[in-house]
Amino acid sequence: MQIRDLGEFGLIERLNSMVTRGRRGPDNGATHNFRLLVDTGDDTAAWTAADATELFTTDTVVEGIHFTRETTPWPDLGWKSLASNISDIAAMGGLPLYALITLGLPPETEVADIEELYRGMLEIGEKYGVAIVGGDMVRSPVIFITVALTGVRTGSPMLRTTARAGDLVAVTGFLGSSGGGLKLMLEGLAAPEDAAAFLREAHRHPHPAVAEGQMLSQSGVLTAMDVSDGLADDLSKLCLASGLAARIYADQVPVHPYLRQAFPDDYLESALNGGEDYLLLFTAPEETVKEVLPNLPEGAASIGEIVDGPAGQVTLVSPNGEETVVSRAGWDHFG
Amino acid sequence: MQIRDLGEFGLIERLNSMVTRGRRGPDNGATHNFRLLVDTGDDTAAWTAADATELFTTDTVVEGIHFTRETTPWPDLGWKSLASNISDIAAMGGLPLYALITLGLPPETEVADIEELYRGMLEIGEKYGVAIVGGDMVRSPVIFITVALTGVRTGSPMLRTTARAGDLVAVTGFLGSSGGGLKLMLEGLAAPEDAAAFLREAHRHPHPAVAEGQMLSQSGVLTAMDVSDGLADDLSKLCLASGLAARIYADQVPVHPYLRQAFPDDYLESALNGGEDYLLLFTAPEETVKEVLPNLPEGAASIGEIVDGPAGQVTLVSPNGEETVVSRAGWDHFG
Repeated sequence: MQIRDLGEFGLIERLNSMVTRGRRGPDNGATHNFRLLVDTGDDTAAWTAADATELFTTDTVVEGIHFTRETTPWPDLGWKSLASNISDIAAMGGLPLYALITLGLPPETEVADIEELYRGMLEIGEKYGVAIVGGDMVRSPVIFITVALTGVRTGSPMLRTTARAGDLVAVTGFLGSSGGGLKLMLEGLAAPEDAAAFLREAHRHPHPAVAEGQMLSQSGVLTAMDVSDGLADDLSKLCLASGLAARIYADQVPVHPYLRQAFPDDYLESALNGGEDYLLLFTAPEETVKEVLPNLPEGAASIGEIVDGPAGQVTLVSPNGEETVVSRAGWDHFG
Repeated sequence: MQIRDLGEFGLIERLNSMVTRGRRGPDNGATHNFRLLVDTGDDTAAWTAADATELFTTDTVVEGIHFTRETTPWPDLGWKSLASNISDIAAMGGLPLYALITLGLPPETEVADIEELYRGMLEIGEKYGVAIVGGDMVRSPVIFITVALTGVRTGSPMLRTTARAGDLVAVTGFLGSSGGGLKLMLEGLAAPEDAAAFLREAHRHPHPAVAEGQMLSQSGVLTAMDVSDGLADDLSKLCLASGLAARIYADQVPVHPYLRQAFPDDYLESALNGGEDYLLLFTAPEETVKEVLPNLPEGAASIGEIVDGPAGQVTLVSPNGEETVVSRAGWDHFG
């Protein structure tokens, strides 16, 4: 059945019922500390404010630009469209809370596909404590999904502007697996099945680093952002925001053995420019980084340092000491 | 210059600078009581929570579906894309606060057009106290604009679910002017210049009823929604949410003299189904409605009553007593 058959309101009713069925208990999901006063279906959602700093972010994906149905099945698309937003909240050291979902859909979209999309959203929402509290659905010649997400945190958020020369640069896990998975699928490359399955899963089912963000923040890390466009690009943005440069060491960039196995010659390219890693990049004085690294997941590593230099410039140092500027001054989605 | 020439980051920088330049004073716009801790440019925006109920809404427009460049110039499109969201906050009795703007844009979009779009957003933001605190910009084959907006209110929000049989149904101003203006432009109809200018302006520059919403709520009105899809459709939604029906009287539906002048035969059709009025529809006991009507703008009127009957059914009663069911059980954007 297509949306044009079921109708807008029929579809909204189905999705709302999926969403609210998932909330536990009499007070709209007290297990996740939601304080909803008005749920989906009115002019706006409403809740009681927490005594905290509030966070607010949004992220959009467009079919053919950010995803294809071939590389990203519907439930994974739902998971990922929330994951990229949760990752932004994680990068501030916060907890995600309330989401609005906007769907741009052609009338010939299959209702069952949109239900699968929501299944993926609800799955990650349940895992990370996100309540979908409303949204908008519009007709569009191209499919797009916009998520707007709030979060909270007690204490100061981690920023991009606070890096200092001498800080170490570190990441919370292996880089490039998602990009490697996408490349395998797009180019139909052969790889050992274990490696291929791992990389595909990394692309389709990323796990935003919410717990890591909270731990970093509680350990006194002041500077962080999430890695979504690739390490080289995102570190460059962080450096630009802080008015500094960075040097990173090729042999310190953490790469999963499966990525190395599938791409023995160009795993480093994936790690630097792969995108959609959704782990955290942070900078802090050496003693802080040494203190937090043992508490982070496998792969977490110090990879270089913040230095004085042209704002935004990231230099890669190879094992034999060769230096290459790898920052691209912001990857241009319109180029 | 097109976006593909300036580049994503160049454009984001220009728009961010427009946005933050507009904030007054050292603390990011204290004139509007913004309590921003992190402004545009980091992973998320952040602010200090108010001791209040928080509201959260989103609304999207797609070129060719919701607007055309011919009927809606860029600054008006910016104004309207925020206005429809502010109107949802108004319908809860709240004050709007923080907005995220998502733009889906083809690479050949003119940079100057997007700056004009933002000019309109900033104009209404300044008037209604909305701070643009971030967003997302993506490449898309079709232009779309999604706004996510928060708001606050002290006390209980007005809902759609709380209408009672015997309540009067009322609106906060003249209906159908926006729809009339659009019809004039789309069909190239002739009309007296004063009337045409008024109706065009009503379509391009609607004024969300924030002050009216606050006044209603403070006067004890419990049930309200904004009129965005047309009176017949929106009243039907309100009735459906409350499990009741409504009767409205054709000769009580408030219509501006200019609309009547331009459409002597079918002004009522515009008033019932025109859409984009962005005023408020509310229900309350007779004594409450009589008390608030004198404090509302010109055009505000009681137009009928909530009755027992099929949930969502709206009946129009003509001056000679003839009855017509005008509810369409939800206008289907995908039909």
